[in-house]
Amino acid sequence: MAQGPEKRSGVLKKLLNDPFDAVDEMVEGFVAAHEDLVRLVGPRVVCRKAAERTKVGIVTGGGSGHEPAFLGYVGRGLADAAAIGNVFAAPSPDVCLEAIRAASGGLGVLLLYGNYSGDILNFGIAAERAAAEGIATRTVVVTDDVASAGRVEVNKRRGIAGDVFVIKCAGAMAERGASLDDVERVARDANRATHSMGVALSACEVPGSERLSFELADDEMEIGLGIHGEPGVRRGPLMTADEIAAILVEALLADLDQPTGNDLALLVNGLGATARLDLYVLYRAARQGLERAGNRVSRSLVGEYVTSLEMAGASVTVTTLNAELAELLDAPARAVGFVR
Amino acid sequence: MAQGPEKRSGVLKKLLNDPFDAVDEMVEGFVAAHEDLVRLVGPRVVCRKAAERTKVGIVTGGGSGHEPAFLGYVGRGLADAAAIGNVFAAPSPDVCLEAIRAASGGLGVLLLYGNYSGDILNFGIAAERAAAEGIATRTVVVTDDVASAGRVEVNKRRGIAGDVFVIKCAGAMAERGASLDDVERVARDANRATHSMGVALSACEVPGSERLSFELADDEMEIGLGIHGEPGVRRGPLMTADEIAAILVEALLADLDQPTGNDLALLVNGLGATARLDLYVLYRAARQGLERAGNRVSRSLVGEYVTSLEMAGASVTVTTLNAELAELLDAPARAVGFVR
Repeated sequence: MAQGPEKRSGVLKKLLNDPFDAVDEMVEGFVAAHEDLVRLVGPRVVCRKAAERTKVGIVTGGGSGHEPAFLGYVGRGLADAAAIGNVFAAPSPDVCLEAIRAASGGLGVLLLYGNYSGDILNFGIAAERAAAEGIATRTVVVTDDVASAGRVEVNKRRGIAGDVFVIKCAGAMAERGASLDDVERVARDANRATHSMGVALSACEVPGSERLSFELADDEMEIGLGIHGEPGVRRGPLMTADEIAAILVEALLADLDQPTGNDLALLVNGLGATARLDLYVLYRAARQGLERAGNRVSRSLVGEYVTSLEMAGASVTVTTLNAELAELLDAPARAVGFVR
Repeated sequence: MAQGPEKRSGVLKKLLNDPFDAVDEMVEGFVAAHEDLVRLVGPRVVCRKAAERTKVGIVTGGGSGHEPAFLGYVGRGLADAAAIGNVFAAPSPDVCLEAIRAASGGLGVLLLYGNYSGDILNFGIAAERAAAEGIATRTVVVTDDVASAGRVEVNKRRGIAGDVFVIKCAGAMAERGASLDDVERVARDANRATHSMGVALSACEVPGSERLSFELADDEMEIGLGIHGEPGVRRGPLMTADEIAAILVEALLADLDQPTGNDLALLVNGLGATARLDLYVLYRAARQGLERAGNRVSRSLVGEYVTSLEMAGASVTVTTLNAELAELLDAPARAVGFVR
């Protein structure tokens, strides 16, 4: 029986009822709290309150436990619908299909989600079924996690916090009335321009599992660890924020076409249990490192955008901007997890 | 030597450098990240980028470690300046005075902060000095924490997450061009209408202290615990979200002028380390409890608004709305921690 490390009592206390009801109760709460922005169109399918009927649709989704991703990115200038899975598990094909239907206005639908096999499988099945119903879809999987595979295997990389910039750019393009071809192109451009790397300081616990998602000693951190606890690239003693930022920035710069002279959007994303105080200290160091290398940081986000339940840690994401991506990032947007 | 409980290793890992630089580095990062919204006008004084010069000024502030409070509430339709203290410590009189000067446009300044003796002392000294410079101030201290004193001693109550609703209403009133009298009146009305109660599941650690802020057994929670670890009203075994919501809602309803027939704004606020998944589950239960008692919940916020570093837990805040407060809550606002 595959088991994670023993649960350390007292570390992770949750505010839940039956853990197996957690996702449905969360969705119910979410839709009630934000009824001005979203509505429920089926079990675990959240869509925009007032969906445009004359634009390309955008569907996102994935496992729960990453809130505000993904349902928090449903709104004007972002996604039209989100398909919601169990905690850290892909949404079912039925849920994905229902989200596609909800987002479809006759001009096609872009499916935009992180590069995980379960999501690819289930969204893929749903896309085939949607095609049979006459709904054209395209798919762009987000692959921003530099730690998960090398530059020559970019299509093996996981999607983490970079989801936010990719959804933002594609969503703005769709909102403008662009064609499915153009929305897909922008999503691919934004994904190609987006690079992330994280550091985990502590594990989280999938509700009901009674076990931590991975093991990390009391004085350790892990660079590059994934948002579901996938192994990272370097485990070692906990360092200072400046030291960690230097490691992350070095890896990100090495992954860019050129390490200098870029106009960058910078996101410092909290994984769940790390204080905003710490996130801003990390942001400061990351920005200094990027600027010292001769880059300009023209747009910034700091906060919790793609979390891993109550995991402590953070990720740093940079997107190299051209005029088009910059304009799309600046376009108006209004969702629970992103307002511009 | 007064000491908190022993630090349990592995529980609280931070992303910081020298802990004594944490606040200044955080402020530096914050201002750099959000230079479109705020600017630094002196050490630890953040003010609006484009301050109106023809309105009543609003100054907020308090200790650090509650981010996005207080500097995240500097922006259009909210506060004009924030005075920032060390972690869980009041800003100095000099910092408060500088914030008052930054917010002053000649029509007077409202000082709006939580009811803590250090803040009252230092903002009070600053207000006297401001008066000597010809800047008229008024002060409203937020006293929403139902757990901290009884109904007959409302002025002894602490300010917690209710700060957000009070700053929002007063900020909107000032943005409209109202007089200092009217802005003060609205702040008092909003404070009187606002009631909060929290639950803590774990402690936090003031950077550099090497100790947890309070002790809580592995299977315990504490109802009513303050945002700096002040004692609550009831410690006991950890309960489900529904049970906790029932206790909080009962206390809140008992504190209203009438427990039924209210139009309510509802805020479920995370203290730092509790997942949004959990917050929405708690929101669902709290809302159901309020509605079952015959109240309407017309406006909602769920997220981290007034935190306690990486403390696990949440608070529930209700504001009883009249037409004026509802309109003020709905008015446009744009700050790092609040967009409407």
